[in-house]
Parts: sequence; C-alpha cells; structure tokens
Amino acid sequence: MKYDLINDDLLNICKTASTEELEELSSDIREFLIDKVSKTGGHIASNLGIVELSIALMRVFDSPRDKIIYDVGHQSYVHKILTGRASGFDSLRKFKGMSGFPKSRESEHDVYETGHSSTSVSAAYGMAVARDLAGDDYQVTAVIGDGSFTSGIVYEALNNIGANQTNINIILNDNGMSIAHNVGALNKYLDKIRSSKKYDDAKSSVKTALNKVPVVGGTIRKGLKNSKEKLKYSVITTEGHIIESLGIKYFGPVDGYNINDMVNIIKAASEYDGPTLIHVLTLKGKGYYWSEMYPRKFHGISAFDPETGEPLSSGGGASFSKVFGDTLTELAFKDDKIVAIAAAMGTATGLLPFYDAHTDRYFDVGIAEEHAVVFAAGMAKQGYKPVVAIYSSFLQRAFDYLIEDIALQNLHVVFALDRAGLVGADGETHHGQFDLSYLNMIPGMTILTPADGNQLSEMLEFAIEMEGPVAIRYPRGSSEGEHLRLRKFRGSNNVINEGKDVTILAAGTMLDESIKASEILKSKGYDVGIVNVAVVKPLDTSWGSIGSRVVATVEDNALIGGFGELFNSEYKDRDYEIVNIGIPDSFIEHGDIPSLRSEYGLDANSIAEKIIEKL
Amino acid sequence: MKYDLINDDLLNICKTASTEELEELSSDIREFLIDKVSKTGGHIASNLGIVELSIALMRVFDSPRDKIIYDVGHQSYVHKILTGRASGFDSLRKFKGMSGFPKSRESEHDVYETGHSSTSVSAAYGMAVARDLAGDDYQVTAVIGDGSFTSGIVYEALNNIGANQTNINIILNDNGMSIAHNVGALNKYLDKIRSSKKYDDAKSSVKTALNKVPVVGGTIRKGLKNSKEKLKYSVITTEGHIIESLGIKYFGPVDGYNINDMVNIIKAASEYDGPTLIHVLTLKGKGYYWSEMYPRKFHGISAFDPETGEPLSSGGGASFSKVFGDTLTELAFKDDKIVAIAAAMGTATGLLPFYDAHTDRYFDVGIAEEHAVVFAAGMAKQGYKPVVAIYSSFLQRAFDYLIEDIALQNLHVVFALDRAGLVGADGETHHGQFDLSYLNMIPGMTILTPADGNQLSEMLEFAIEMEGPVAIRYPRGSSEGEHLRLRKFRGSNNVINEGKDVTILAAGTMLDESIKASEILKSKGYDVGIVNVAVVKPLDTSWGSIGSRVVATVEDNALIGGFGELFNSEYKDRDYEIVNIGIPDSFIEHGDIPSLRSEYGLDANSIAEKIIEKL
Repeated sequence: MKYDLINDDLLNICKTASTEELEELSSDIREFLIDKVSKTGGHIASNLGIVELSIALMRVFDSPRDKIIYDVGHQSYVHKILTGRASGFDSLRKFKGMSGFPKSRESEHDVYETGHSSTSVSAAYGMAVARDLAGDDYQVTAVIGDGSFTSGIVYEALNNIGANQTNINIILNDNGMSIAHNVGALNKYLDKIRSSKKYDDAKSSVKTALNKVPVVGGTIRKGLKNSKEKLKYSVITTEGHIIESLGIKYFGPVDGYNINDMVNIIKAASEYDGPTLIHVLTLKGKGYYWSEMYPRKFHGISAFDPETGEPLSSGGGASFSKVFGDTLTELAFKDDKIVAIAAAMGTATGLLPFYDAHTDRYFDVGIAEEHAVVFAAGMAKQGYKPVVAIYSSFLQRAFDYLIEDIALQNLHVVFALDRAGLVGADGETHHGQFDLSYLNMIPGMTILTPADGNQLSEMLEFAIEMEGPVAIRYPRGSSEGEHLRLRKFRGSNNVINEGKDVTILAAGTMLDESIKASEILKSKGYDVGIVNVAVVKPLDTSWGSIGSRVVATVEDNALIGGFGELFNSEYKDRDYEIVNIGIPDSFIEHGDIPSLRSEYGLDANSIAEKIIEKL
Repeated sequence: MKYDLINDDLLNICKTASTEELEELSSDIREFLIDKVSKTGGHIASNLGIVELSIALMRVFDSPRDKIIYDVGHQSYVHKILTGRASGFDSLRKFKGMSGFPKSRESEHDVYETGHSSTSVSAAYGMAVARDLAGDDYQVTAVIGDGSFTSGIVYEALNNIGANQTNINIILNDNGMSIAHNVGALNKYLDKIRSSKKYDDAKSSVKTALNKVPVVGGTIRKGLKNSKEKLKYSVITTEGHIIESLGIKYFGPVDGYNINDMVNIIKAASEYDGPTLIHVLTLKGKGYYWSEMYPRKFHGISAFDPETGEPLSSGGGASFSKVFGDTLTELAFKDDKIVAIAAAMGTATGLLPFYDAHTDRYFDVGIAEEHAVVFAAGMAKQGYKPVVAIYSSFLQRAFDYLIEDIALQNLHVVFALDRAGLVGADGETHHGQFDLSYLNMIPGMTILTPADGNQLSEMLEFAIEMEGPVAIRYPRGSSEGEHLRLRKFRGSNNVINEGKDVTILAAGTMLDESIKASEILKSKGYDVGIVNVAVVKPLDTSWGSIGSRVVATVEDNALIGGFGELFNSEYKDRDYEIVNIGIPDSFIEHGDIPSLRSEYGLDANSIAEKIIEKL
C-alpha cells in the first residue's frame, strides 16, 4: 500500500494528489475494504463500487462546509475512510464500535444521517433552501443509487427542486441494480441511455473474469449481462429527458472509474446555476473478483474468506427467512391464488425459491413499500391472496396504507415482517422495534409472533386460510427451536407450564430467553409458569389460570404500544402484579444481539432479575 | 330538468343517449349537485369539474365488470349519481347517511375505496395484474387528478406499470390545481403541454364571468390565469415525454367538456395493448359561477347559499387552524428562523396569512407528506425551525420519516397536526384517531394537546423554543374555550380541581365534555377532580394528589397506544381503579361530531355513565 489510510491526511491528498496517485489511493482503499470487511462483515459491494466517486467528490468539494449526503448510508465506508475513520473499521458494526451508516456523532463530515433509502434528495433540498435563506453559498450534494430512485419520495423531491430551480447536485450512482436487480420503467430508461453510448471494451478490468465464470442460471447470466454493460465508457452528454422535463439539468453519463472525467463533470455541474443530476456509471462490487461476480451476495455479508468469497461461518441452521420462503413456495403449489410481493428484498426475505417455482406470481416492485401494499390491496380485491414480505422497519413506510387501504377495506393480505425485533449490526435504523406498536392500533389487524421456524411455518399456512389482514413478525437469524416441536399452532397461545410465583408471557422468539430466565428462577426456588404468546392481537387469553403472584410480559418490541401495554390495559383489574419487559423508549445502537439484549435488559439474566425484584 | 336522476336508469342512458342528450344530462347533474350540496355541504368543485368525464367513462366501460377507481374518493359524486345513488344526496356525509367517498357497502360500482390521495394507480395495477393472472379481460381505469400526481406512490406505480406493460388506463384529470394551486415541476411540464395546443376562446363559458371579477390579489389573479388556460380546446396528440419515457402510451390532451372527443379517446386508449395515460383538461368548479371563481373555497365546503356562494353559518368563532396560522405568522415576525411547510393544505391549515407575510419562508410541497418531513429535517439540520402543518391522518404517510429522519437525529421540528380526533363528515379515512398512538412510540417525541385556541397559541410559542421534535395535535373546528383563560401553559398539565371520588384526566379538547360530565357527576353527589392534560409525552405527572378512588382518562384518540395506555403502564402499581375512555378499536363512520361522540361513548353523558359504573 502506498498510503497509510489511518494516519495520512486523506482529505488533503484528495485535493492535491495527481490522478495517478488518486488511482493508487483507490486501489489501497479497495484492498483495505476487502481486508477489513472480510473480517467484520458489512456492506461491501456498494462501497467497492464508489471508491473513485467518493474521492472525486472530496477533490471537488470542501467538506464539511460543502454538504455531501450519502443515500441509504451503507455506501459511506469510503467517505468514512477519507474523513479520518479508517481505524474504526476493526470495530465496524460491532457493539460500541463504528457504525455502518453515517452518524453525526462520529464526524462533522456526516452532515445528515441516512439508513432507510431515498431520503437524500429531500434532505439535500432542505439544506439547500436553508442555505439560500441564510444567504450562504456552500454546495449541497446527494449521492443516490439507481435502486433508491424507485422510491416515490425521490420523485416528490425532484418535483419541488425542478420547480424552484434550487442549486443542488444529485449524483445518480447507477450500477443497474439496487440490492437485487433493479425493476421498473426508469431502469429500462436508464438502460437505454447507457446503451446508446459508445464504449471502450478495453477498459474492462473484469473482462477476463467474465470469461472464467460458469453459466449457472438465468439470474447470474442477467448479472453478467449487466456487468458488461457497466463497462461501457461514456462521454459527457445532455441526455435524460425525464430529468430535464422536470427542470433538472442532466450531466452524463460518466465513467465512475475515471476520476478526471468525474472531477470535471462534477465541477461543471456544481458551477451550473440550478439543480443538476450527474449520471455516474458504476459497477457494484468493483475491483474484487467475487463481489463483481455475486454483487447480491456481497451487498451485505457476514465475515468471509477473501480468497474464496465464502462466508466463514455457516450461520447455524435455517433462518426464519428461509423457512418463510420455503413454506410459501410449497403452499403456492396447492393454492394458485397465492402471490408473493417483495420490495427490492426478495432474496433477503427468502423468496428466491418462490420466484423460481412461481415466476408469474412473484412481484418485486422495487424500493416502493407504499406501492407494494396498495398493489396487494388491488390484487386482494380481485380474490388473490397476496403475501407481502417486507422488513419490519421498512414497512413503517406503508403505515398509512396498512390502515386506509388494507384494514379499512378488511382485505385479506398477509404481511411477513422479517427482521422484527433487534437486528444486530445494522443498528438504529434497522431494528424492528416498533412493529407490534404500529400494528396493534390498526383495527381488524391480526398479529402473530412465532417462537421458532416450525411455528412460523404453521402460522403462515394458518394465516393464508384466514380472512382480513394478518401480520406475522419474526426476527433475523436462525429459526431453530426445540420447545414447541410437539405443540401445533392452532390460532392461540400455548401454555407451556403454569407456576404459582410468576407467569412469563413470552412474545414470539423471546420464548428462548424466557425459558432460560425460568431456569434461573427455578434454581432459586421459584415456581414459574411460561406461555408462548403466539397471538398478540386480537389478544388471546389462553394464559392458563394465571394463579401466580406476578405476571411478566416479555417482548423484543418497544414497551410503548407493544404487547405488554395491550395486556396491561386489558387486565386493569387484577390481583397480581405486572412486570413489562421490552425495548425501552429509545433508539437502540448496533451490535451483536447478545450484547444488545444484555445492555437493554432483554437477556435471561435481566429478565430473571426484573422478576425477582417484583417477587 | 330533462332527467329524473333518482328514478331513471342513468347507466343505460349513458350507453344509449345522443351527445345532445348527454349534455342535457350533464347540465341536470350540475344543477342537482349545486342544489343538494348547497344544503349538505361537501366536495363540490372537483365533482362539477368531471360531470362529462364521469358520463364518458360510463359510456365506454361496462361497470362494475370494468373497474373504475376514483382517486381521493371525493370526486365520486357524479359516479354515485350515475350508479343509482342520487337519492342519497339528501343525507350526504350525514350521520348514518351516504358517504362522501366510494364505499363498497353502498354499491358494487365502488370497486375500491379511496380517501387519502394517490392510491388509485397502484390499486388499479393490482386489479389489472389479478385480471391477467386469472385470464380475464375486463378493463381497469384509474381517474386521478394532477394534484394527486405530486405524491410519490403514483410514480412508484407508474414505474412498475411501464416496465410490465400491463393493460391499464390512467385518466389524468388535469384541472391545474389540487386543493390549492398545484406546485412542482410536473405541473409546469403539464402547463407546457397545455399551452402548446391551439384553443378556441369561443368555447369559454366563463369568459364573461372572468371580466366581471375584481382583481383582489395575487393568488386570485393566478387562479384566473389558470382558468383561462383551462378553456383551451385541445386536440388528440401524442405529447408527454415523461409518461412515454416510462413506457406508458400518452393520449391527449382532450377537452373534458367534449363528451364525444372523450369517448373516442378513451375507447382508443382502452383498445391499445398496454398501459395508457389519457390527459383530460378540466376546470375545477365548472359550470357554477362561484365555484369557478373560488375553486379553493368550494373544494370542500359547508352548506352555502347557491345564489351568493356564501356559507350559511359563520362556523362559531375562530377555528384552531386560524389560531395556529395567525400565531405562527406573528411569531415569525420575531424569529426569522421559523419556516412553515404545508403539503397541499396550506389554506386549510390556516397558513395563508403566513404565506402573505413571509412568502419566502413558506413552502407548499404538494401532496407529498414524506418529502415534507425530510425536507424539514434538512432545514432543521441547518439551524432553521420548521413548522410542518399536516392533518393528523395524512401525517400517517410520513410515519417512517418521523422516526428515522426526525427523531433519530433529534431534530427540532414542530409538527402541527390539524384535524386530530373526530373530524365529522369526511368520516373513516379522515378521523385523526391514531396520532397519539403513532407518536407515543417514537423516542424523544414531545406531544402536546391544547384544550382550546388560547392554549394552542401558547403551546406553539413554547414548542418553537424547545429542542427536539414536538407535535401539537388539535381538532377541526372552533377553538373557543372558557376554562383555561387564566391558566397559562407552562409546559405541564393543569389541575383544574381535585376530587375524592374520581379524577378525570382530560386530554386536549376532551376537556369540555369532561367538565360537562363532571357537572352530571356532581349533581349526583360525587366529588370530582379534573386535570387538563396538555402534555401527553413525556408523561407529565402534574395530576394533583390523585386522592380519588377512580381515575378516568379521556381522549379522542384510539384507546390502543393512546394516552390512557401510557398512563396505565406508568401507574401499574396503584390504589385506585382506572377507566379508559377513548376511541374503540374500530373505524369510525362519518357524521356530525355530537352524534359520533354519543355513538362511541365520548360525550358527557357516556363519560359520566362509565365513571359511575366504576364508582
């Protein structure tokens, strides 16, 4: 490595170095990223794709006076390295370590925090308007991927920016895929722009690589085709009718690996008086054989062997996502009214087998959760049974539509909320800590919480046969569980055993920690009952006799509005005391699940302690 | 009137009558609408604008086999008349009467229920995909205004529709304004299409009218200019680059008052193999002098004198909206960091004076609640103090952004939630029954609930001086109140008096009914305490001593997740009994507020009864 990424003043180097030196810096950063992220895990592919772009931005702009906002946030690794945080990569996404997303508390260069996609343009517009009101003249730039462009809020922002002609730079980081491959008419349109340009095959750094890879299936072949297109060398032009129709000056496309070209075009755009969009062509996973080949796999990955690209650990049994996807695929063979809807997270939510088996009944709408839900409503109105798989924290975006379109019309749509509860390394923006709360208040919503994969599978079958809206929420990670194997889910809670001192009502996967807590309590001589709370709403009253002195509710959801509060209000008149255990009224940092559970009082020890306090 | 709108088979007439007869039918329907809605109130302007369009749709399509979805729903009056519901207009929006929105329970012709804007395209796409999967061949048509087109979900839907080339018809009902005048680049673009067409001034039915009207200010002048443009007679063409770039075939623009032309173009579009957009030019308020002149005033209006266009009742004192707008306007004179953000409801939320006084600090982003919130976040990051005024039920759309952009970054943004609690005639989709619940769960959110206009005014000043996110929620209607005149809001609850039998904790404007309930209770010999709950979160514990046997929480919010539940969970260990009074776990129909309060147990009598039960 030419540069010491930890101790060199990289910002100054970005400003002063020659093009050749910056190319060396790029190469060093790539090497560093692969080395570090292979040990910690993280979002590597998108960051490898924009090393040169991040450097070019630092050459043109004067951060933090000039504001650079990275959309979705997980593409900010290079930005973090350039702004003095390379040493943080040893603790990337670890408990108390560096975040995988922009955080103002880490650096003044993180001028706006992002995590969920597609907010950068609106936020940049807000900053630019503030600048103009204050009579200031700094530059504001949003860096946003083509995948994020499928979300409606971007269009809402462009509509305002175009009309008001505010000075703002939008960098469209176009790698032709969001997390999976992109969907939608805009993408087809961008493809047209791409393919209308002349390109230079000789620039291909992955050309040889491409020839080595076996053709393993349609999906991969499509990936290759896109990769090839990405190598086109592009000239500066003024194409882009959609963008220009909205009053935004289009610059590009420009090769995302030619620092000089990028610096020139970004400079030109920043000097233009009015809003601009700079179309940069990049390759997700650029410069690392395995991530170029399998950009989807390397989108967000756990620790891996840099030589083989293979994950270091097997992950410990089938995930909830896999159980969900496999079960739904099976059920759809028997019921041709079942359709599956994903919002850019088809693979991550386990729907690949469904796509393979029932291609015509699989719909990936892009990063467009609102549309996903209303689209499902339309299908349900016509007698189909849509199953909508969206992460718990992302479904927050469709809250209004869950109420007004689904629940108000009492439509039979099944929502599979993956990544409910604590998610671990992604942290604050990704924990599914609010879903029980935002679903509980919706009239007519049934809410199910499986304790393990076996129960999830039974619940899904049950939910599809129900009427009205049903949500099933389950966490990231392994679905293994021993406790319920012999207790078939029949639409109600399971009393595992009764106890005279305390009854623990454990929502969903909190059953495991609750059982461990009960062992601790038993070892101290207490008589403990446990209920597997499989149905949160309508509140199922199969608790057994509740002859105990204390009842403890346990959930990995916010205490406010969650299962415990529902219980408290239903049982206002009672002769036992209550302990509510759940996520406190705060945002939860990133870190491994055991550390987070311990920190926030959700592990077996904490549960036992809180109960003993009451006893 | 040539036609008997109540007894004639209007659907058949639409199919078989001559053009001249359909013009007479249009004229009869207009007369009927003005007569009926002047007595009941309702959304008249948008319906007057699409009489001919609604008839043309019924001529071309075979409803309900063919599906017609009216976006936002309040533009479905003519559709209701044509489908046998003219007799319902005497009870329009009355308690137990006909809804002002499409309702499947009213008619099989209401194939999808709408209320909040911009869902029609996604829903239509869902129906069309279901049709194709089932091998059916009916037509699916969304009728959507240009205002609704500013919402991102429409773009998410178009992006999918264009890519998949699904057979679907989108009627763009372009009247150049949504509720107020339209904002945004798309609108400018549509204007260009409009003005590039030849037009025939002689067709102007409002031409004479235009010359009569005094020039009363910029806003009105702008309205006139737009009205003139709307009269242009347009020919069928294939303009519309944005739309066609997305893979959707563009037809139009066509004159929305030429039934023949519309029938021909809609027929042509429906026979086209793939998605189409039919651009229809209409005039909001068409055919009635006063609504053409003041389309904004006649968007949604209470009963009025058809001769003068003046409302029949004065409405009884200043509304909360007016107090909010006037106070904010005053405060902004003293603090130049205050900016106001509206989402197409600037007038309705009382911001017109702010716009007049501080034009450069007023931002109407269109029907784009998500963008409004993130735009505010960007401004707050740069030291401005954004006040975002959005209806309680519409802010549901920005739920995710309230969490991830505002609260997580602890940004100082003030949310003014108008139309909180029961709204009355608009009914199910518009009641602000969920806001305390969806705000309570958000970490760091301060939630204030004024009991009257005086308190709202003090709270707003207080909120602007705070840190972090603050929400103030208040209802539609009069802000008059006597009870708090001498009790200045100082950031805490007000103990109005203490009582030994029961303490009533009355959130916000439920104070009035609670005081009435206390009179009833006192007349029966009970000793009653009352607290004005002005701060819901963080739970303020200024309740006085609570020496009573019973505590009653009273709120016009869903019981689930609301103030009462917060209280129950905070006071799990207590020596008094609790009664929670609020909106039950169901959707609330339309009707006048007293009827609804009585029906759902929120009036003084019901409150007193529930408390007596407990005593």
